[in-house]
Amino acid sequence: MTLTGQLLIGGAGVAATVGTMKALNPATGELVEPEFALGGAAEVDRAVRLADAAFDSYSHTTLAERAAFLDLIADRLEAVKEELAARTALETGLPAVQLQGEAERTAGVFRKFATVVRQGRFLQTAIDTALPDRQPTPRMDHRLQKVALGPVVIFGASNFPISYSVAGNDTASALAAGCPVVLKAHNAHPGASEIQGRVIQQAVAEAGLHEGVFSLVRGAGNEIGEALVDHPLVRAVTFTGSEGGGMALYRRAQQRPDPIPVFTEMTSVNPTFVLPGALAARGAEIGVGLVQRAMYNVGQACLKPAVLLAVDGPGLRELREAATAEVEKVAARTMLTPGIRDAYTRNAQRIANSGGDLIGAGEVPAAACDGQSLLFEVTGEQLLAEPALREEVFGPAILLVRVDGTDQLLEAARAFRGQLSATIHAEAADRAAAEQLLPLLERRTGRIVFNAFSIPQEVSYASTHGGPFPATSDSRFTSVGMGAIERFLRPVTYQNFPDELLPQPLREANPLQLWRLVDGELTRQ
Amino acid sequence: MTLTGQLLIGGAGVAATVGTMKALNPATGELVEPEFALGGAAEVDRAVRLADAAFDSYSHTTLAERAAFLDLIADRLEAVKEELAARTALETGLPAVQLQGEAERTAGVFRKFATVVRQGRFLQTAIDTALPDRQPTPRMDHRLQKVALGPVVIFGASNFPISYSVAGNDTASALAAGCPVVLKAHNAHPGASEIQGRVIQQAVAEAGLHEGVFSLVRGAGNEIGEALVDHPLVRAVTFTGSEGGGMALYRRAQQRPDPIPVFTEMTSVNPTFVLPGALAARGAEIGVGLVQRAMYNVGQACLKPAVLLAVDGPGLRELREAATAEVEKVAARTMLTPGIRDAYTRNAQRIANSGGDLIGAGEVPAAACDGQSLLFEVTGEQLLAEPALREEVFGPAILLVRVDGTDQLLEAARAFRGQLSATIHAEAADRAAAEQLLPLLERRTGRIVFNAFSIPQEVSYASTHGGPFPATSDSRFTSVGMGAIERFLRPVTYQNFPDELLPQPLREANPLQLWRLVDGELTRQ
Repeated sequence: MTLTGQLLIGGAGVAATVGTMKALNPATGELVEPEFALGGAAEVDRAVRLADAAFDSYSHTTLAERAAFLDLIADRLEAVKEELAARTALETGLPAVQLQGEAERTAGVFRKFATVVRQGRFLQTAIDTALPDRQPTPRMDHRLQKVALGPVVIFGASNFPISYSVAGNDTASALAAGCPVVLKAHNAHPGASEIQGRVIQQAVAEAGLHEGVFSLVRGAGNEIGEALVDHPLVRAVTFTGSEGGGMALYRRAQQRPDPIPVFTEMTSVNPTFVLPGALAARGAEIGVGLVQRAMYNVGQACLKPAVLLAVDGPGLRELREAATAEVEKVAARTMLTPGIRDAYTRNAQRIANSGGDLIGAGEVPAAACDGQSLLFEVTGEQLLAEPALREEVFGPAILLVRVDGTDQLLEAARAFRGQLSATIHAEAADRAAAEQLLPLLERRTGRIVFNAFSIPQEVSYASTHGGPFPATSDSRFTSVGMGAIERFLRPVTYQNFPDELLPQPLREANPLQLWRLVDGELTRQ
Repeated sequence: MTLTGQLLIGGAGVAATVGTMKALNPATGELVEPEFALGGAAEVDRAVRLADAAFDSYSHTTLAERAAFLDLIADRLEAVKEELAARTALETGLPAVQLQGEAERTAGVFRKFATVVRQGRFLQTAIDTALPDRQPTPRMDHRLQKVALGPVVIFGASNFPISYSVAGNDTASALAAGCPVVLKAHNAHPGASEIQGRVIQQAVAEAGLHEGVFSLVRGAGNEIGEALVDHPLVRAVTFTGSEGGGMALYRRAQQRPDPIPVFTEMTSVNPTFVLPGALAARGAEIGVGLVQRAMYNVGQACLKPAVLLAVDGPGLRELREAATAEVEKVAARTMLTPGIRDAYTRNAQRIANSGGDLIGAGEVPAAACDGQSLLFEVTGEQLLAEPALREEVFGPAILLVRVDGTDQLLEAARAFRGQLSATIHAEAADRAAAEQLLPLLERRTGRIVFNAFSIPQEVSYASTHGGPFPATSDSRFTSVGMGAIERFLRPVTYQNFPDELLPQPLREANPLQLWRLVDGELTRQ
């Protein structure tokens, strides 16, 4: 695929209107061809109007049609995976082999959502049959299904340039719901974005869908994001990135005359709690696992286990020594952008300034955009006294917390803000402490992991990638996994309808053989 | 039950801290005993802290315990229904017989939510079993359930002083979800609020639950509402009332350091579209049905069919004459409060000032708080030109719109803002027009009714009482019906857990015999 650098607005390639940019190779600091078009409010308006024009037909495609479209995107993504991985590696400094795996997994996500669409459970169909003889008043026939919200704006993320970017989880789940997508490409990987965007654009054409089902825009500064969030025809927004960026978009959308849902996935330190039995039994193993998991993607991951808390006692020395040795083995690696690298240096310094002891460090960087892996240590008392120690450092830094007894561990658990995940390491002897810890974590996180450092994030029915603020802006939803589709749906009830005017999923004969809730009981009849 | 006038904070009755108030009998304009306590930020803080303290134990009650508690509230509500109806009639001017029916239906809502809790489907349990041999990476066991959000603040509404007030749909669904409730009582019916509040307070005690599961506060002006919305321990808010009031609370909550979900149900004119075949076949019947439905509760209802649009042609004269005659039969009736009555007069005048022809009027009011039923008429062109004609008049006013052809009817459908409901009257010959109208209505409303004027609002599995802005602040949820519980739940995933530490609904043996999604298939095994 020859990169054109154009914006993709519906079926068209659109040239720059407000200047151009080039990708930066963060490993070399050099700019990479070609020039990429930048657009502004006019291109946003054109893309959103097309999305709105596509809405009625796209949201009313049959389940089979929509599933076939998602499968087609998956096929086409797989067909370009080598090319996509190579260009993405050039723009991000991430290993091509890892990125090819990411492309394969992302194709898999589209296939999984195709299955979700075919199964049709996301429609959450419910039927309350008529009760003409009910006293004191009869009941009319009521039939409910979920319908698509409308055009969705998705902000591509920087750190997983495929799975959380143009053809990522958000796009897959919004398209599965029946919502046209206007994608705001991240400027850190414009070529990777174009390849993914053109895959989807071509699939739209090949499937014979309205061209407005997908557009990709790109701009400079905040202007384009603001134009997207402000556009009156946009019905929902998703964002993965920093708390500052996410909350700016969130608050802006809430100031619209008609506020719209904004799902932002922002910040999490994913605390890991090591209970005494586990520490004594396998302190060294936990130390190694922590570092290996935390350094994945150069620590640039929302699920990085950034803070590990262990009750001081047998095994802690082994954990600390193993973690230190493991960190010292880590090569300096290219971070995503110079801006992210600079913020990393600044935020790691914040940990040091807040009393963090540096107890281990990886290879000293040679190149300008390289990040050095760092392992800090503090006491539980320090963690409790200093909120900055409980905040994310985006990049390859880890904080060990030496906690003084189980009560202080529980107190520390209460001190964290909302999290995407938390992990417990425990043995049978730790049961009482685990049972005290669990309700605290349940209240503060969207996922609790037991005795594991998990990679990758599963994309399945029981996945939650969400959590209380500031992990996300709305803990009631997940952005990864099959439940992510729920962000883009709303219920509509059809009351007293003749069968022939009902949407197909609600017709009396159940022609799609869906699971439906009929008079309060699940049935496929 | 002797009214004490106290605030109900946990198990305690609490005296006034910022003055007292008395109920007003709107029919006579007289104040009614006793004095009711007003509280402020200190009482809010005490109630919310108690709710937070109750959260862990209440949200972890077993499904059987929680269902029994809801049934107990239902029993106790029924036991006081005569007394509740009598006091409520005194405070609202609504007929006691209607209010007794409302109390019975509301008890029924608690019983229905008890069933929802026992069925356990609201937990939306999903299990992805471990795949240790999966390539390229194994999958760990993942298990998801929904958990309660935390303490919920509910603003009692004025117009349905039982079913949308203290013991209303919001309270029933929040308690069903496992959330403690702090109820802000509406000052238009303090006695009715106390009776309902003490029913719940006593049920909490009798069920042996933490006293913080329910509190009722009352205050003067906006201060108490602001203190509730601002309180850092509050995790969600619901409100039913005006667009101005709802949006003030919504926007305030979005300005918190940690924004929280606010579900506001605000305004809707519930447009009714009469297609030519239906108009010719039963114009007069539709005219009578419209007026009878619209005048329910003195027009003070969120589902009032406030605007009827009919294509000019055969049957329109009959519809207009029948509606006019029906309106002229309507007695002047007491409105809920002098403030509501004054706003009604003002807003009805707005319709007249915007070009509405008064073509029918009910009995001229004698008493100060009485509302006169009014029937206005405009053309489709006027409706399209003047947004004020498409806005709600809270009270017994109706607007007939004489539309010039089907195209103008469709254009008018596109002009409405988001609605709770819309109605189509159509015969077989109207099928083509109905099929054009349906997608427009689906996009703009939460419920579409066919050939009916429906009372009451059903509270069931397929109910939707929601819709695009400004009908509600979040169209993805309903405030009435079994789906209302979803507002107060969020997903949590338990990954790689030992069976004995899993919540009961997720254990391998499925001890509660729940429907669960196991590896993508629904099963009760």
